Amino acid sequence: MPGGRQKIVTIGGGTGSFTILSGLKCFDTDLSAVVSMADDGGSTGVLRDELGVLPPGDIRQCLVALSTSGQVLRELFNYRYSKGGLGGHNFGNIFLSTLEKITGNFKTAVRETGQLLNIRGRVIPVTLNNIQLVARLADGKKIIGEHKIDGSGLSNLEKIYLSPSAVINPEARAVIASADKIIINPGNLFCSIIPNFLVRGLGRAVLSSRAKKIYVCNLMTKRGHTDNFKVGDYVKTVERFLGGKCLDYVIYNKEVPEDSLLKIYSREGEYLVKKGNFPTNSKINFLGFNLLSKKIYKQKEADPLRRTLIRHDSEKLAQIIYQL
Amino acid sequence: MPGGRQKIVTIGGGTGSFTILSGLKCFDTDLSAVVSMADDGGSTGVLRDELGVLPPGDIRQCLVALSTSGQVLRELFNYRYSKGGLGGHNFGNIFLSTLEKITGNFKTAVRETGQLLNIRGRVIPVTLNNIQLVARLADGKKIIGEHKIDGSGLSNLEKIYLSPSAVINPEARAVIASADKIIINPGNLFCSIIPNFLVRGLGRAVLSSRAKKIYVCNLMTKRGHTDNFKVGDYVKTVERFLGGKCLDYVIYNKEVPEDSLLKIYSREGEYLVKKGNFPTNSKINFLGFNLLSKKIYKQKEADPLRRTLIRHDSEKLAQIIYQL
Repeated sequence: MPGGRQKIVTIGGGTGSFTILSGLKCFDTDLSAVVSMADDGGSTGVLRDELGVLPPGDIRQCLVALSTSGQVLRELFNYRYSKGGLGGHNFGNIFLSTLEKITGNFKTAVRETGQLLNIRGRVIPVTLNNIQLVARLADGKKIIGEHKIDGSGLSNLEKIYLSPSAVINPEARAVIASADKIIINPGNLFCSIIPNFLVRGLGRAVLSSRAKKIYVCNLMTKRGHTDNFKVGDYVKTVERFLGGKCLDYVIYNKEVPEDSLLKIYSREGEYLVKKGNFPTNSKINFLGFNLLSKKIYKQKEADPLRRTLIRHDSEKLAQIIYQL
Repeated sequence: MPGGRQKIVTIGGGTGSFTILSGLKCFDTDLSAVVSMADDGGSTGVLRDELGVLPPGDIRQCLVALSTSGQVLRELFNYRYSKGGLGGHNFGNIFLSTLEKITGNFKTAVRETGQLLNIRGRVIPVTLNNIQLVARLADGKKIIGEHKIDGSGLSNLEKIYLSPSAVINPEARAVIASADKIIINPGNLFCSIIPNFLVRGLGRAVLSSRAKKIYVCNLMTKRGHTDNFKVGDYVKTVERFLGGKCLDYVIYNKEVPEDSLLKIYSREGEYLVKKGNFPTNSKINFLGFNLLSKKIYKQKEADPLRRTLIRHDSEKLAQIIYQL
């Protein structure tokens, strides 16, 4: 790191990565986003089905986050249609998928889109294999597909895996190997974060990298997935799926949102992640901050997904990560 | 013209303009494409209906024709989806319409897309009014919409007009006023060419311009629209709708295509446009050339429209126009 720009690699899905990358983009770093390829819901799922392409949604969010283009182009890539045959589709997803069809290559599509959006950094699919996320429950029941798993209870989860199995994209391995800092982003733990760790070679790459390993913990629990999870539970789960104790820092939130907001979430069975007790024998530095964004997020009418209103302050997070 | 680049303005629809512009792009001219806004068929019609936008299709074809970007971007903008919810849609149309939704302005959408495609020249909607083409027949029947008129017989056409009435885009008036050459492109006469002339101010602008006025006549007749039309019939119709005798040159084809090709067209009631007799009292220079393209055009599976296989050689046409 001395003498050069920090090499920062983030690992995550769409929304959480968007937050981290939007903030980090404003610092002079060498930035790479490694992105999950398990998404199969909404517009992404329809495009995978109908065009036989790799999932564009999470990649698109990261590309927009890193874009230094004008507002119009970024709005265009996030535009969601509200009705008709295009209803529910997202423009950026259509763009990426069509480019993949034409070039026959997802990697090329991502690269060309990155150039068009004039991105600061790189966006790297964690794998180039066409995979599905599968959850096997203790009763033998299998839930196939990220989108279905997202809507199911996982309290009796026995195994979560990718089908077919996937190998790490060599570009992802390379940036992880030479990173100064690796950030595990916040996000849907079992559907957006862990699918990265299930890719063969990812865990080993992270564990063997000399980078500082930093985990940014979620703000809210998710019903059926992380009920009652405290910071330590997230950390344990992340390290278990990464394949070893490796985290150096955990950044968690200690700010309490307004009651009215918490109420909205509690209706969905989602609650503020509590600090709880940290493992005493751990080498991890647990760092608590007031991390809540003060921005007001509007629900978009056309958007079939409920969007988080309790969010990380991306600038603050980036500042903390940059200075660690 | 001496001392500067030729200022060439073309007036037309999608396919015919594409041919003329693709050729002219390769010459060092100041090129403007004035484009019909009456299209409401296929992907364009669906987008007009569902998103409430102005028709993107013809404009998109002109933008791609003038693009100096790489093959990938041009292919992307011409990409047509074959199935699913996107089936029948064209990527470039979606792009233009979405940009119009975001910017709230078709003009801006066309300009931004032109920049992205790095076009040589300008693409100018003939009007910015949202209009429909209407045909009234002698029996009082009204056919509403360009797409429906395209599929109907017009042998007893009494009146063809725009509803609501439309005024010329000031940008179109300006380029016509200062042009050295005005080209009336080949194309679907009643559905793509004449709709330009129905815009208030267009005919007057052409008639009062000091430019050389050049009409490139169609290769094939269209059943129910221009049955038995000879070159002189096209010329008469064009001048009638322009509002006066104004043409200086007419470029027509005198080459005969292969029998096998002619047979395919005759099944659709379409025949080679014959030279016929030219009006003897006319100041027009009638110029006959062998104008057929030797390229092989593949029918695209996803394309619901039958595409012409007998086409103008765009390079040859451009050469002739440039040297006039």
